Amino acid sequence: MQMNDMILVSVDDHVCEPPDMWERHLSPKWKERAPRFLTMEDGTNVWLFEEQQIPNVGLNAVAGRPPEEYGVEPTALSQLRPGCYDVDARIDDMNVNGVLGSLCFPSVPGFVGELFGRQAAVGEKELAIAMLRAYNDWHIDDWCGRRPGRFIPLAIPPIWDPDEMAREVRRVAGKGCHAMTFADSPSALGYPSLHDAHWDPFWKACSDEGTIVCIHIGSGTRPNMQDFSAPVEIMIAGTPISLFGCALELVFSDIFTKFPGLKVALSEGGIGWIPYFLERIDYVHHHHHCWTLHSFPNGKKPSDIFREHIVTCFIDDAAGVRNRDLIGVDNITWECDYPHSDSTWPQAPERLWPSLTGVPDDEIHKITWQNTTRHFRYDPFKHIPKEQCTVAALRAKAKDVDLTERVAGGGKQPSDYAKGYATIGDVMNQLAHAFSTPFDGAAGGNR
Amino acid sequence: MQMNDMILVSVDDHVCEPPDMWERHLSPKWKERAPRFLTMEDGTNVWLFEEQQIPNVGLNAVAGRPPEEYGVEPTALSQLRPGCYDVDARIDDMNVNGVLGSLCFPSVPGFVGELFGRQAAVGEKELAIAMLRAYNDWHIDDWCGRRPGRFIPLAIPPIWDPDEMAREVRRVAGKGCHAMTFADSPSALGYPSLHDAHWDPFWKACSDEGTIVCIHIGSGTRPNMQDFSAPVEIMIAGTPISLFGCALELVFSDIFTKFPGLKVALSEGGIGWIPYFLERIDYVHHHHHCWTLHSFPNGKKPSDIFREHIVTCFIDDAAGVRNRDLIGVDNITWECDYPHSDSTWPQAPERLWPSLTGVPDDEIHKITWQNTTRHFRYDPFKHIPKEQCTVAALRAKAKDVDLTERVAGGGKQPSDYAKGYATIGDVMNQLAHAFSTPFDGAAGGNR
Repeated sequence: MQMNDMILVSVDDHVCEPPDMWERHLSPKWKERAPRFLTMEDGTNVWLFEEQQIPNVGLNAVAGRPPEEYGVEPTALSQLRPGCYDVDARIDDMNVNGVLGSLCFPSVPGFVGELFGRQAAVGEKELAIAMLRAYNDWHIDDWCGRRPGRFIPLAIPPIWDPDEMAREVRRVAGKGCHAMTFADSPSALGYPSLHDAHWDPFWKACSDEGTIVCIHIGSGTRPNMQDFSAPVEIMIAGTPISLFGCALELVFSDIFTKFPGLKVALSEGGIGWIPYFLERIDYVHHHHHCWTLHSFPNGKKPSDIFREHIVTCFIDDAAGVRNRDLIGVDNITWECDYPHSDSTWPQAPERLWPSLTGVPDDEIHKITWQNTTRHFRYDPFKHIPKEQCTVAALRAKAKDVDLTERVAGGGKQPSDYAKGYATIGDVMNQLAHAFSTPFDGAAGGNR
Repeated sequence: MQMNDMILVSVDDHVCEPPDMWERHLSPKWKERAPRFLTMEDGTNVWLFEEQQIPNVGLNAVAGRPPEEYGVEPTALSQLRPGCYDVDARIDDMNVNGVLGSLCFPSVPGFVGELFGRQAAVGEKELAIAMLRAYNDWHIDDWCGRRPGRFIPLAIPPIWDPDEMAREVRRVAGKGCHAMTFADSPSALGYPSLHDAHWDPFWKACSDEGTIVCIHIGSGTRPNMQDFSAPVEIMIAGTPISLFGCALELVFSDIFTKFPGLKVALSEGGIGWIPYFLERIDYVHHHHHCWTLHSFPNGKKPSDIFREHIVTCFIDDAAGVRNRDLIGVDNITWECDYPHSDSTWPQAPERLWPSLTGVPDDEIHKITWQNTTRHFRYDPFKHIPKEQCTVAALRAKAKDVDLTERVAGGGKQPSDYAKGYATIGDVMNQLAHAFSTPFDGAAGGNR
């Protein structure tokens, strides 16, 4: 097969929520308390929800911007490609990249609905669940529902209440949504740890409904950083490997013993480290179980547990693809990460194809779409004939998509940074400022 | 070549300091303040130094014990194989394992001499440097010096004072020692971070003297653990990968720009994750340098910096060996980890050889000894004819070594643990107890 014959389904992209998303799914009682989309005096946009201010952070939506202008400055909607927030434009951007299907993580609510969780924590549970359900309804009905066969719906959990989570798993499953996010380290968010039976109602509902649990990087664990005055690359490069710890916790937990049908996807974790991970957990189990007295059901090894329950994904990871036999070729999926800065859009096929040199066709199909359709219960061909799903067929529909770079300010100069380059601290300070600058209606901002 | 033809040099083993180690290298003024080796009422041994009590922790010296009895209970010297603390017995244990050469990390002082650093921190700098120099002299003269050609000497740093560190680097280099330990995260130990110019005198001295800096796992960074009630395997399996973060910090620091001759060894970090690491750092540099404005000298990639300056090692790591071309076959060394619980002793050749299937002879030699002799400035053949250095030749000298397992109590039962298996908390509590139980001379303990 050729590059153009691939069928690409991405298990990790992101939606920047559009300003009108709260229009259709809230009762009048709640509508006036919905998050508000605001334009600040400097022209940038933010969301405001019950005193919480959430910017459109630049690094989260850089598709189509020149690399010099990546960064975390808060941005205006007008600086983003419409594909970030407009579903029709998103389809165009998927087509031009040859991508058939996409699972989109949330931006404003946080990966596990922390925005609503914080309101629940201060006693506003009714408000929180009303907003969370409206968010999921918007995502499933309006974002994914508009173009059948092109999206894998992904719900967010009412993380503050496991019984409510179970109800929401079952409710959205009834609407055809069989994926829900969860935190890589709930204890880092102030909830009980992964190992706590607290979460059993959630695991049980997911197991019952065939709902895959999607754990994205940055949903609890922070990368290990020694010095905020060091280059920000340390933080960026160290973030995906933070799922190594989550994978360890999952494998050695009793979650999969209690819920043998449960599947978990590690989102944006990469795959190149998995061969080492699997060797290491088996080595440790073999060397230590005689004194720790820990064992797995039916004499299984920890690597068996991993391969039975955990699904991995990668953007561009040649070492991982080379060693797919050590990972388990049935557990590898692909992602695009549009519109984040690690994305390969709009050259995803060109970037992926060299990694697949020498990979047999049947394994390419497993990695690029078949594993995803199975693990995520996604059936695009019910809606779209298979021959219209390839890279070539999709790109043929996208000849008019404008790929002109959207230039804004031209980016930073070395003199903009105390050390001449961006440190972790520089980026943290920008973020803190963006999240805390209060909306000043009198100063020219308007709804 | 065959398994028996290998020449094995280990860059990571451990010495449990013998009771008489302070006899020869201290002036009478300091001798009475040296750490004291004590026998407790229950028969276990501890070291006592200025109110600090250090046990012989079981997991650190399990070679020769049945796996059921691994654990972290404090042990008596009589429970350890003499090879842990007696250098002649160590040579026997190396011979029986077919190992020619060994670099031994300290136990009682901590990997970077923290035992002495804590005294320096309370104003006892004279005491601290006297003890530290005596330690290094004992290690170089008595431990390594007794059997020329069999050890690579490794000094510990006076971590509390970079100028003193530089002096010690030069002093021990004068005695033929060209390796010194350092912390993977000095800031975690209360000192300035890796990135701070504070350490420049140390880096400069190492660069000047051709001294390799050896950074062992557990020398600052703790593995990421979410819940102490979870199985202890999570902590054990997650510890080596903690050097991923250190490698990131080093590569993106300006240390190697300032000191282009400097080499750093990552000790017990494993190698299976390195292909992913190198791909990831190059990907991040490529995707982000346009806005972060961070660059390396002469347009180098971060993977170039890694391969020029960082030496890796592994115990048993098939995926890493398979992908040696992605790591850089000139940067891989081997380790035995005697007498710790992850060691493959006394079957190291049998465990290593299957990983080397299909590896060309010249690359086997690089990995098992040639890289080590070059990076660590070690020349065994000056003392021992090469034909006497192979696995077969060394084992031929060790026919009388007693490999009978040293059975003590029979190990724990499930009922000994609240959850039926050892949790992180169980092990932490044992450790805390071992380190804090005061010596009670009246209760039957004696020197």
